[in-house]
Parts: sequence; structure tokens; C-alpha cells
Amino acid sequence: MKIDRNAPVGVFDSGVGGLTVAREIMRNLPSEKIVYFGDTARVPYGSKSKETIIRYSRQIIRFLQEQQVKAIVVACNTASAFALDAVRDELDIPIIGVIEPGARVAAEETKNKRVGIIGTIGTVDSGIHADYLKMLDPQITVIAKACPLFVPLVEEGWLHDSVTLEVAGRYLKEFKDEEVDTLILGCTHYPLLRSTIRTVMGEDVRLVNPAYETALELLRLLKEKDLLSTGTGQEEFPYRFYVSDLADKFKDFANSILPYDVEMTQKINIEKY
Amino acid sequence: MKIDRNAPVGVFDSGVGGLTVAREIMRNLPSEKIVYFGDTARVPYGSKSKETIIRYSRQIIRFLQEQQVKAIVVACNTASAFALDAVRDELDIPIIGVIEPGARVAAEETKNKRVGIIGTIGTVDSGIHADYLKMLDPQITVIAKACPLFVPLVEEGWLHDSVTLEVAGRYLKEFKDEEVDTLILGCTHYPLLRSTIRTVMGEDVRLVNPAYETALELLRLLKEKDLLSTGTGQEEFPYRFYVSDLADKFKDFANSILPYDVEMTQKINIEKY
Repeated sequence: MKIDRNAPVGVFDSGVGGLTVAREIMRNLPSEKIVYFGDTARVPYGSKSKETIIRYSRQIIRFLQEQQVKAIVVACNTASAFALDAVRDELDIPIIGVIEPGARVAAEETKNKRVGIIGTIGTVDSGIHADYLKMLDPQITVIAKACPLFVPLVEEGWLHDSVTLEVAGRYLKEFKDEEVDTLILGCTHYPLLRSTIRTVMGEDVRLVNPAYETALELLRLLKEKDLLSTGTGQEEFPYRFYVSDLADKFKDFANSILPYDVEMTQKINIEKY
Repeated sequence: MKIDRNAPVGVFDSGVGGLTVAREIMRNLPSEKIVYFGDTARVPYGSKSKETIIRYSRQIIRFLQEQQVKAIVVACNTASAFALDAVRDELDIPIIGVIEPGARVAAEETKNKRVGIIGTIGTVDSGIHADYLKMLDPQITVIAKACPLFVPLVEEGWLHDSVTLEVAGRYLKEFKDEEVDTLILGCTHYPLLRSTIRTVMGEDVRLVNPAYETALELLRLLKEKDLLSTGTGQEEFPYRFYVSDLADKFKDFANSILPYDVEMTQKINIEKY
């Protein structure tokens, strides 16, 4: 099959969190078109089973293939952890997740070989960051912890708040005690808590935001496969957004964080795929 | 159609919360069999749209009808608020929700005619408690507030915790300022925070737990329709549990709160209904 290099890139997440990844793609690959899907009818993914997340991911991938995307970015840590290996071989287009790019930069940058990971219960229990980090460098010690209240706190808008600081203090204490020098923000919502996490962890700990690393990985991959767009990025509607619920609420959130005016978000029934 | 009075009662919720309702049915209607469904693959419902919750509820009702239940209890405030009116006329068996029983007892018990309601964003935005309370007594003033962090705090197990107390203090301040004398716990998870809510609200405010009132309403309804079971309650497997994800985790939680040893919980694919 010949892949159309000017086709859009498909990006999906359980909801709005993956927009932080889409944003980095817009910034770093401005010629690329994007079709984004947020599974707002079934969000969150982080507390659900591997089997269920694979089923949901397959449905979304079928939808994105119908949109004739040239590559897929799994912009959700839980779906990357649970589904990427399962679906990769089923596809004839490239697919990447957010785990490997984040882990790679953490492995490169840690000095004391002590790396922390925070994420959802699903992501942390999968152990995938640890597997990947130890493959890159067996000397690395990995400390991982689920932080289930972080997403609800972000969604409540308590980004700079004494409650959030107290919760972060409890969740992150272990990483301070363990003296990690690098902490992977292993959930797409967490970069929005960066300043609180910075306050707790101090200035000397490197905070890795996999969204940026994933955009760079996509750039490398498209180059390697000779799939970089030859477009100008000035086409009509370069970015299209689909969700499974609450399209207007999604659009408002997207407009608040994207360097782009989101005019249209369409709701689809993902269960039919 | 002749309904079998010895058929089970169907009870459903977005997840585990509705078990607080099932528990009250077990206690107060010990001869009744129950088929419980928890939609753990799509939980939570409280932050999703009316249209989506109606679609999910219809799927679950089709599943429960396949189990040949004689009546249905919507043991979820959001589904009761959004879906009950839409599905009632489509059914030839009785169906009740948790909103009306809670509102009725609040209307009866308030002295100063100032009633508060806490619940999910969906339940509170629906305005259904206020509509119902004002229908019962136009003189009642209703104050409603969504408390989106309460469910995640319960699920994190921080039931008696300084963070939970601080969050409750913020959410409930308005009800103290407004001097409500009755507060409806309008989400099935909230009774698990009763002692924290009690600490914030003080001893003089009546806390209404709709789970108990709903069990009594079911008893009245089954009597009225001549559908009370003639069984002994000693049959094999009087209570059957189904979920859409994470059956083992559900079973553990159910065993921790039910006066009954849950041996088997079965996972089904609810999207097929």
C-alpha cells in the first residue's frame, strides 16, 4: 500500500489530555495536518483494564483509518502502555505512543540513574516505563507511583491551589526520599500541574514532558519513512477534531490550550467502529 | 404481559456506587432477588452528556430485560436525572430512580424550607432535584452544588482525611452560609463521606441518604403492583452481579460493603446491547 504523504496524522486520547501532544505536533511539525479523536464518552482510561483499553483503542484506530491518516500517535499514556504492542502489528501505517519517547529522554538525562514515573493506575501497574528504561540502561533504578487525584484536580481547575499542593506533597514524597533526579510526567494532564510539581520536587529535578518528545519522535519517524508532508500548513481546516461526547465542552477546552482557533468539533458514535 | 413476582429486581449504576442502594434493598426487602449491573468500563457518568447517559441506560435496561427482571432500580443519580423520564414509557415493567425518594423525604423533613443538594455535575446541572422539591412544596428554596472531587477521593480511600475535610469545607461552605437544614447526598458514593460531611455541616443538619429511601419506595411499589416475592430469600444465588470491566476489583469492593458473600461477578460486553 502506498501511503499518501500529505494525508493527516491521527492523534487520539481518552479525552482532552492528548491535546497537549497535539499542541507540540502543531508547534514542531507545522506542515502536518491532524485528525484528533478524544474518547470523552468513556474517559478516563487510567482506571480500566488492559482488555477494555485495547478494545477501545482498536475502535478508535478503525475510525482514524476511515479518515485515511498516514500515521497514528497514541497521545494517552494508558493506551500507549496497554494497547500499542497489541495493535502495532495489525496496522500497515506507522504508530507511536508517548511512553518510549519520554523514557528515552529520561534515560539520557538522568545523572544518578534514579528515575521516577507518575501516571494513572493503569500506566503505573503496566510497568512499561520500567521495562523500557531498564532495556535502555539496566543500571537505572525506577520508582513509579499512581497519582489518581491529579486528573480530577486538573479537571476541577485547581492548578495552583493549597489542596493540590498538599496532595502533590503526599504523592511525591517517595520520590524525594528516593532522591530521583528525573521525573517523567506519565499522564497527559500532568504538565498542567508542572508548577505545583516543581514546587514539591525542587529546582534540581528534571521534569520530563513526553508530549514534546513524542512530537520530535513523530518528526523523525515521518522523515525516516519518507512521509513528511509537502503541504504548506495553510490548507483549509488542517486540524479536525472528533469526540464521543460533549463536543462543545471539548472545543472550549481545546481553544484554551491550542495555538489555533478550533472552529468545529464533531461528535461520533465510537461504539459502532 | 404477566410479570413473574418471583423474578429478580434489576439494579444498575455507573459502577460500584449503586451497591449502597443494593445493600439497602438486601436489608429491607430480604426476600427479593437482585441482578446488579455496574458499568465499570464507562464509569463515571457524572461528567457526561444527557444523550450519552440515555444511550448507556437503554443498553443496560436491554441487558436487564434479557435477565427477565420484574422491576428496575436506577441506582445512580446521574442516570436517574437524565434517563428515567426517557426510558419509563418504553418499558412494561416498573422502574424507579433515586432522585424522587430522596427529594420526597427532604421535603417532608425540612423545617426552614431550605434544602441543599450535592451531586455530580450532570445531576446538579439537570436541576431535577429542584424541580421535584418545588413541585412538592413551592416554598422550598433549593441550593445545589456539584462536588466533582468527592468520588475520586472516595475511590482513593481518603474517607477520613485532612485533604477530604478541606475539600468538603470548600464545597459545603455555601450550604452553611445559606443555612440549609437538610442536605441530600445526591450521589451514591457520598454516604461513604458521611462523617466528613457531618463534621463540616454540624449535628443539626439532616443528611438524606437516598439509598435507604429508594429501598422503601421499591417496597411500596412492589406491594402496590402485587409483585412482592413469595420466595424465602434462601434460594441459591439470590444476588447476581455483572459489570462491563474489572470484575475482580468490583467483587472485592462489593464484599467490603455488602452483608453478603459475593462469589461471582461476571463481565459482559454492554456495547453489544
